[in-house]
Parts: sequence; structure tokens; C-alpha cells
Amino acid sequence: MDTLEAKYAKLATDNAPGQEVRQSASGLSDLLRGETLLGTPVDFSHGDVDAFLPTPGAFEAFSAGVAPGSGQAYTEYRGSGAIREMLAERLAAFTGAPISADQGLIITPGTQGALFLAVAATAGAGDKVAIVQPDYFANRKLVEFFGAILVPVTLNYHQTSDQAGLDLSQLEDAFRSGAKVFLFSNPNNPVGVIYSEAEIAEIAGLAGRYGATVIVDQLYSRLLYEGRSYAHLRAGRVDPENVLTIMGPSKTESLSGYRLGVAFGSTRLIDRMEKLQAIVSLRAPGYSQAVLKTWFAEPEGWLAERIRLHQAIRDDLLAVLGPVPRLEVRSPEAGSYIFPKLPELAVPTQDFVRILRRQAGVTVTPGAEFGPHSLGSIRLNFSQDHRAAVAAIGRAADLIERYRR
Amino acid sequence: MDTLEAKYAKLATDNAPGQEVRQSASGLSDLLRGETLLGTPVDFSHGDVDAFLPTPGAFEAFSAGVAPGSGQAYTEYRGSGAIREMLAERLAAFTGAPISADQGLIITPGTQGALFLAVAATAGAGDKVAIVQPDYFANRKLVEFFGAILVPVTLNYHQTSDQAGLDLSQLEDAFRSGAKVFLFSNPNNPVGVIYSEAEIAEIAGLAGRYGATVIVDQLYSRLLYEGRSYAHLRAGRVDPENVLTIMGPSKTESLSGYRLGVAFGSTRLIDRMEKLQAIVSLRAPGYSQAVLKTWFAEPEGWLAERIRLHQAIRDDLLAVLGPVPRLEVRSPEAGSYIFPKLPELAVPTQDFVRILRRQAGVTVTPGAEFGPHSLGSIRLNFSQDHRAAVAAIGRAADLIERYRR
Repeated sequence: MDTLEAKYAKLATDNAPGQEVRQSASGLSDLLRGETLLGTPVDFSHGDVDAFLPTPGAFEAFSAGVAPGSGQAYTEYRGSGAIREMLAERLAAFTGAPISADQGLIITPGTQGALFLAVAATAGAGDKVAIVQPDYFANRKLVEFFGAILVPVTLNYHQTSDQAGLDLSQLEDAFRSGAKVFLFSNPNNPVGVIYSEAEIAEIAGLAGRYGATVIVDQLYSRLLYEGRSYAHLRAGRVDPENVLTIMGPSKTESLSGYRLGVAFGSTRLIDRMEKLQAIVSLRAPGYSQAVLKTWFAEPEGWLAERIRLHQAIRDDLLAVLGPVPRLEVRSPEAGSYIFPKLPELAVPTQDFVRILRRQAGVTVTPGAEFGPHSLGSIRLNFSQDHRAAVAAIGRAADLIERYRR
Repeated sequence: MDTLEAKYAKLATDNAPGQEVRQSASGLSDLLRGETLLGTPVDFSHGDVDAFLPTPGAFEAFSAGVAPGSGQAYTEYRGSGAIREMLAERLAAFTGAPISADQGLIITPGTQGALFLAVAATAGAGDKVAIVQPDYFANRKLVEFFGAILVPVTLNYHQTSDQAGLDLSQLEDAFRSGAKVFLFSNPNNPVGVIYSEAEIAEIAGLAGRYGATVIVDQLYSRLLYEGRSYAHLRAGRVDPENVLTIMGPSKTESLSGYRLGVAFGSTRLIDRMEKLQAIVSLRAPGYSQAVLKTWFAEPEGWLAERIRLHQAIRDDLLAVLGPVPRLEVRSPEAGSYIFPKLPELAVPTQDFVRILRRQAGVTVTPGAEFGPHSLGSIRLNFSQDHRAAVAAIGRAADLIERYRR
């Protein structure tokens, strides 16, 4: 196998969210037990933008962006100056630290685009990058794609409830061993837990002590459940040039179809990211950029209502999953993921995921995508039609019983 | 300078098309001669989508794409299956060889997105990649970004008129020296010349003999001027697994604001490209993909009229440039670029480009972006308002006289 072949083998997307349509059904029939369970199919691999509609005014903002023509179609590679001005102010207010609209913010094609550019800007071949396990599945792939070396840091999320559970001594070991970058999502994807203020302060302290850059993916940081607070790393005692924050309106705001994300903070990294964006995709879609005018400017009460509806789904799903013997699940504090660890089954999780899709019309993402410690878990994005989601999890619970070892 | 710093220094975008707004004016005043020339500013660094509007129905197709919600927002990474079906058929008819909608086509964020993925899928660190000089400026940057080694092949476009002028013996030398990939644009960007049928057959023959992969960027292959014909490499005697063709509706169709491109052909490369796209940007913007339904399905006569209007601008610009003493220019056969070589001036081309912008309101791209043999040239995208473009080139001709050595 040549070098490129090996590189791409590591990027397999067969089990990636939303790509299940490309899976073959080969070999599955031999494993099946019992009948198909009827019900509305639910695709928990990503949020359902039919159940939770894009923010009001998004389409109108897009239309208004098409009207000006060239000015909006051909922005600077880092995005429209006027829109960056607007966002810098709102995001500074949200995150509690200033942002330079001119030098310190880039608009990207989704937060995925921002993550790709951020890792490329900080990690080259042979560099060590600390990432959390479990965390967003693309983090590992990004680090490996650039030939960098992954230094895992464990999240002991099951052993704790007042903090995310990051193993800080492992993080310090990673820095001590030469890792110059720490990449993590907060709230954590897939677990939905928030790093406590003390954890964020510790991360900032360690990064400062070892001169490391921290990339924090805050995609879900607006969707906080009742009683939860959130500490923004960039608002703490950090060198602003060593912190890059990534956000976007694809999840809470259901604007994924417009492909928008932003990264802000370190001007040194933003500068590199723009240069790379120029050869990766030129810019975030010009007309789509106009949709960002609606971001952090939603109608009064819109966010509170969206949170309330998600919290209600969360609670009902936990009520179904809670009683399943030997299933472990931590209640998410933010975002729309649940990451239950299944009881021991008679089939491997990977196969059970295919069975869920086949016999219950339930699509989930296998835990293996998120790291080697999560082989027995599955991730569900519960930003779905409430009733259909509860029924689907009911069917999943039935199949867990049917396939229990 | 560390490795990453050096890598990003090579990706400088200071003179890249559309990025002039970030240039500083420092040091320019000392060089200026005479007064400012008044007239409507024209930005020849890219086409003006106000002068040539997006294809009819594009916005309506986008709107109709937003309506279905999830299905269009979250497509497979390689793009919507139904849209790939549609495109595979139309592009097969256009290029003269079959395309597998399921395995052999990917929708990308612009043709830039396709080029990035294509180079990543074929060239790793230390691999040799043959590229043409002059050619699209990002080709060099892409090859260098992946740590591959650029093997230049000269285009002798001034010495010939019935063919593009590729130095085929240099291409064979490149393959003989180990280059496994040949990347070129046809029609050539920046010169606007078309490779002859004989040249395409020779390229195919050499690639076959040396087992090389050919990536051909056919972005402008629909906009052919009167009396010109076009040979599609993929329709010739080639191993279809060794050819990747890239196209998109950003130029002729003025749809750049939607960020759409496609790559088709080699299933092995499409497969790698999809895996990489999953971590680069997930997918081309979901709603935008719906705009591709209008592509190759424009109203009767639309393309012919667009060609006629561009040809008229081309001819009028050449009529202004032709009489300028010692300026060399070849009439473009396709696309909307002119690439004149300026007479010797008293200031370097790079500075003259800044002077053009300052004293004449004329923005052009310096030839240095396209390769080391083009330092004395400038590129103009003449997809502009006809009258304003002719006047602007008149001002540019005046300034050439003013700054002539």
C-alpha cells in the first residue's frame, strides 16, 4: 500500500454521520433476530432541520445577499468586511473578550472548514497534537491527515457530574512531551458535557506554562440547559495569540445548509488560515455569508424557546434510556447529543448500529468514530421531531433487549 | 523560520485576485507620475456578476432547494444523489464519455474545492507533479502545500496560433523523471488558449505510456469563441481511471456566489476526494447544490448570446491593446481572460499594477502569480460591463505610455 493509499484508508467515512446510505447490507442477514419494528424512521446522525427550522429571517438574508451581486459573490477570502465587523462585535460580547474584525476573524465553509484550516495552521508532519477521547470524530482524522502525532487525553465523563472530567495530568504530560496544540470541543461532542470554570482555568494555565496553542470548538455553546453556566477560554488569563475559538450557526440555529462557520482570536493563525482557504475553497459561499447577519440577532425569546424544546426531548429520551439495565448515560448539559454506553450485546456495536437502522429505522453513529474507549457507545443527535424521537428510542431499547448477551 | 511558517509564506495572497483591498499603499507615492485618470473603476481581477448576471432560474432553484429542508441541507459528502444523476448524464454528453453518477462524480465548494481535493488525492510529500507555466496560480500553491515537487512544463503560447503551444518534450521529460501527475487548465488560464486535438492526443498518449494521472481543469470549456473547437481529454484514448476532469458554473454562468464545482472520472480519486472533503468542509453547500439543476439546462440561446457578448468585448479590448508599441498579446480562443505582455516599463510590473489601481481605477492580476516566465504580463478578466471595460483599458494604455522606459 503506497503512502497516499494508507493516508486515505485512515479517512474512511463508512460510519460517518449521514453517510449510511453508502453502506452495504452484506452479511447482516445472518445476524438478525426477530421482526422489524415499525415506526417513523429517525436519523439521529444529525439534527433534523425540518423539526427545528432555520432561524427566522435566514432565507430572507440570503436573498438580500444575492441582490447586491458582485460585492457579495466575491468577498475577501476571509469573508465580507462588513459582516466581519458585525460578527466581531457580537462574538466579543458573547465570549467576553475583544475580537479584531480586520485581523482576528475568518468566515469559513462551516465549522468543519474552520477546524480543517485551524489544524493545518498549527500542526505539520511530526508535530504532536493533544486531543480528547472521546471528542468530535474529525479531530483525529485532521491530525492524522497532516501527518501530525495524536496525543490522547482522556475525558472521564462517567466518573463525574460537576465538571467534564478531563484528565488534566494527562494534558500536562502531553504538553511536557512536546505537544504544542490542544484541540477540544466544549461542550464536548459526543457527550454533551460542559467543562467547568476550574477545568477551563487549568487548561488556560497549562497552555500558558507550556506555550501551547489551544483550539476550542464551541459549536454548541449557545444551547445550554437550565442551570448551566459556560466559561469561555478566551475570556480567561490567556495569551490571545495562542487561542483560536471556532463557532458556527449550523446546529442550534439549523443553518447547516448554508455552510457557515467562523474562527476568531489569534491573528497569526487567522492569517495562515486565510492563505490556506484561498487554495481550499476561496471563501465561504458569498451569498450565504449574508445569512450571518441574522446570527446572534434572532428574535427575542427565540433561543430560550429552542433550548426549552430540546431540553424536553432530552428529558424524555433519558426517561426511556434510564431504566435499560446496565446502560450507562450521562445527562447532557448543552447541545443536542446523547452518548449512551450500551450493555454488552451479542453482536459488535458496529453491527448493532446497522441492525438498528435495518430493523428499527433508527440511524445512530457508532462510538468507535469518537475514539478507542467508546467502542460500546452510540451517539444520538436528538434535535429531532419530539414524538418520533421518543418512539424511535423506544424501539432502540427494545432491540437492546433483543440482542442483549 | 519554522516549517509551518515557511509553508505559509509560500501561500501569500497579497496579489491574488480580489484581495487587493488588503494591500497597503506604502512607498507608492514616490513612483507616481502625472495625474489620476478619471473613469468608472473596473476590477478585472474577476468577472463582474453585475454585468453578466447569474443564469436565469439559479436563485429560484436555490429557493426550491431550501424548501425540502433536511434532505437538501444534509446530502452525502459527495453531494446529492439525485443531482449527481442529473449532472452525470449532462456532463457525459458534453465531454463525450460516460460518467458513473454513483462512483465517478463529486460536487465540491467551487472548482477551487475540486482542485484542492484532486491534488491532495494524487500528490503527497516528495511526489513530482508536472504543471504548466503559465497556468492558474493556485496550481503551484497546491503542489507546494502538499510538499510535492513541481516540475514545470512551458507553454509557448506566443510562438503559435493553431495550438496552445505546450512543450511536449518537456512533458515527456517530466514523466520520465518520475512525475505521476499532470495538472493543467484547458482553456488555459491566464492565456485563454485551447489545446489542439493533436496536443490533447499527445498528452493522452504520454500519460498512458508513463501511467500518469491527468487532472484537467476545464472551467472555461463552454465559453468557446467563433470557429473554435474543443477536444475533451477524457473522450480520447485514455484509461478513465487515470483522468479527472474539473468543471463548475462559477465563470461562464456567473454562479460563483453559490460556490459550486464538480470533479468526475476516476472512481479511485473521487473516493479519496470524498473522504477528504468530509474533513475539509463536509460537503458543497447543501442548498446551493440545487442550483446545479439549472446547469447545462439554460434557456435556448442563452449560451450563444453570452459568448457573443464576451467575444465583442474581447475584440474591442484587443483593438485598444493591439496598437500599443511592443505590447504582445494573443487573442484568447475561449474564456474571459486576456494576458498581455507589457512593454518594458520604468517600474516593476508589481508596482505598475498598484499604479493602475491608484491612478486609473483599473484592477488587474500581476503575471508573477502565474509563473516565473510571466513577470512582465498582466491578466484581465474581461467579463465586465462592455463600455466601462473598453474605457478602462484605454486608461491602462495611457498609463503604459506614461510609464514606458
